[in-house]
Amino acid sequence: MHLFPFAKLSIFAATLNLIIMSQCKPYVLGIDMGGTNTVIGLVDARGKIVSTAAMKTRDYAEFEDFTDALCRNAHQLMSEADALDMVGGIGIGAPNANYYSGTIEEAPNLPWHGILPLGEALSQALDIPVTVTNDANAAAIGEMTYGAARGMRDFIMITLGTGVGSGIVVNGQLVYGNDGFAGELGHTCAIRDGRQCGCGKKGCLETYCSATGVARTAVEFLQTRSEDSLLRKLDPDTITSKDVYEAAMKGDALSREIFDFTGRIMGMAFADFVAFSAPEAIVLFGGLAQAGDLLMKPIREAMEANLLPCWKGKIKLVPSALKASEAAVLGAAALGWKAK
Amino acid sequence: MHLFPFAKLSIFAATLNLIIMSQCKPYVLGIDMGGTNTVIGLVDARGKIVSTAAMKTRDYAEFEDFTDALCRNAHQLMSEADALDMVGGIGIGAPNANYYSGTIEEAPNLPWHGILPLGEALSQALDIPVTVTNDANAAAIGEMTYGAARGMRDFIMITLGTGVGSGIVVNGQLVYGNDGFAGELGHTCAIRDGRQCGCGKKGCLETYCSATGVARTAVEFLQTRSEDSLLRKLDPDTITSKDVYEAAMKGDALSREIFDFTGRIMGMAFADFVAFSAPEAIVLFGGLAQAGDLLMKPIREAMEANLLPCWKGKIKLVPSALKASEAAVLGAAALGWKAK
Repeated sequence: MHLFPFAKLSIFAATLNLIIMSQCKPYVLGIDMGGTNTVIGLVDARGKIVSTAAMKTRDYAEFEDFTDALCRNAHQLMSEADALDMVGGIGIGAPNANYYSGTIEEAPNLPWHGILPLGEALSQALDIPVTVTNDANAAAIGEMTYGAARGMRDFIMITLGTGVGSGIVVNGQLVYGNDGFAGELGHTCAIRDGRQCGCGKKGCLETYCSATGVARTAVEFLQTRSEDSLLRKLDPDTITSKDVYEAAMKGDALSREIFDFTGRIMGMAFADFVAFSAPEAIVLFGGLAQAGDLLMKPIREAMEANLLPCWKGKIKLVPSALKASEAAVLGAAALGWKAK
Repeated sequence: MHLFPFAKLSIFAATLNLIIMSQCKPYVLGIDMGGTNTVIGLVDARGKIVSTAAMKTRDYAEFEDFTDALCRNAHQLMSEADALDMVGGIGIGAPNANYYSGTIEEAPNLPWHGILPLGEALSQALDIPVTVTNDANAAAIGEMTYGAARGMRDFIMITLGTGVGSGIVVNGQLVYGNDGFAGELGHTCAIRDGRQCGCGKKGCLETYCSATGVARTAVEFLQTRSEDSLLRKLDPDTITSKDVYEAAMKGDALSREIFDFTGRIMGMAFADFVAFSAPEAIVLFGGLAQAGDLLMKPIREAMEANLLPCWKGKIKLVPSALKASEAAVLGAAALGWKAK
């Protein structure tokens, strides 16, 4: 039995040295690629965003034009900060991105279709290791590294935006699943045969609990109820979750009910998520997560009412601790440190 | 920088040697502790059960009496096989057992209450490392090591018995969660405000899809429907899922509908489980899992109808490949190899 292959030690040590040296580069690039804007951040090891550059995602007819421009902008950002050759990795959070393949696959919110080789395009052009993941996973990694989930090994990140996204962390690791697409909690069934979802299914959590879902609830409530409400002064076609929030903060009863309704559905869903992975906390990210007790109270009540006894009173429910403008870049940057 | 501490090499090699030697003991004990019977198996590295011993779980007034007898039986089993000092670890699958603490906590199906220090009792008495987990997790480990999930890094094990249990494997690791109780998928909500569950909640998956749930559906169908059925010849108070299976196999239409109903609820739930962890497969264990297409077909149809497009046609649905009588012991034994 070869307990310890001494002959191979020097090769091993040299390899180790290389690995350590590549880890010693003091910066990473964190790229938040969205349907509208793409932001590149140069980030140091403490999670400080040193400088950023932004570009419009939709200004490019072909995906290759987009990646060419992204590489030019990234190169310029590093160059201006005297950080060429000092960036150890690039992390990218992008819609419908696949961690295993580094590709974006059939993203409905992007102008290019099919399977887009995002990671490969950047790593080849810039000669820096690139890791890609979807935006909600990037947010989860950001939260774990710099935010409300620091030190946690088991938590669930829920992102409340146009849709509902999620990043699940188990044993300190993001759950990617067999194909890289795990964590689509926005498309679990909240109400059987409920609202039509963009994914083709009915009753998905995101049809009720996203910002869009809240607006949809507002329109429904205004149609089916007769009470007076501040929301009646607005054009139903343009009501946003922010309008509902502002009306609720002014004491509008119907708007408060909309948040109660939203929170109850979310809390019931969260109880089932807890039964899956028994997380220490559920972290909420996005504009709605800032609604405070208006949303958190009904979520917590419905979650507690639906938890198994062993979890009652034990699952933390916390808003993200990262600035909205920085979270996605920081999350992607945290992923960049793991790029290889 | 100490890239490689050569001075410490000999200590390191010696430690490594010790670790390897302790791993070289050729047997483990796998213990399947149930509410009625407890089976101890002496298992070799190939997963062959060399010999077994069984005892009645409920014959002991105090938990200490039970563990004393368990240790005596285990010692005798090892002694008879000339395997004293050749057992490297003990794995135990037990109801409501906690992997982190090695305790059983408030198990409704056992005669002793409170928090029971199972792992500690055995490891102290036998001087062998012990690892404890709940029965469904043990089944998942068994399936991963010896059964239908060999080579899979991401799958979900669903055990269909008196209740519905689950063991979730992500990245090749069992998901224990923050507190050791993860994977209670039998208590996710299948039907909002549905059947009363023993856990205190309503509409839990196990109230519909366990063997007991199937019997409950049979009684409901017999009460609310008027068709003739072979089941009408039986006493409704004693109908079992096996009765329903046998009637269905004889072509009884109502019994087939009961399986359709059960499978549909299970399939819809499975689609949500897939959205969580994107497993390669869902493995079904227990008597009901042997019902073949009678149950598998409606499960598959309902699951496919509720999956996001990216998963349609891609998630395997397979019955356990382990003999029912051996699975629990083999699962516990596989855990024993990891005991430390």
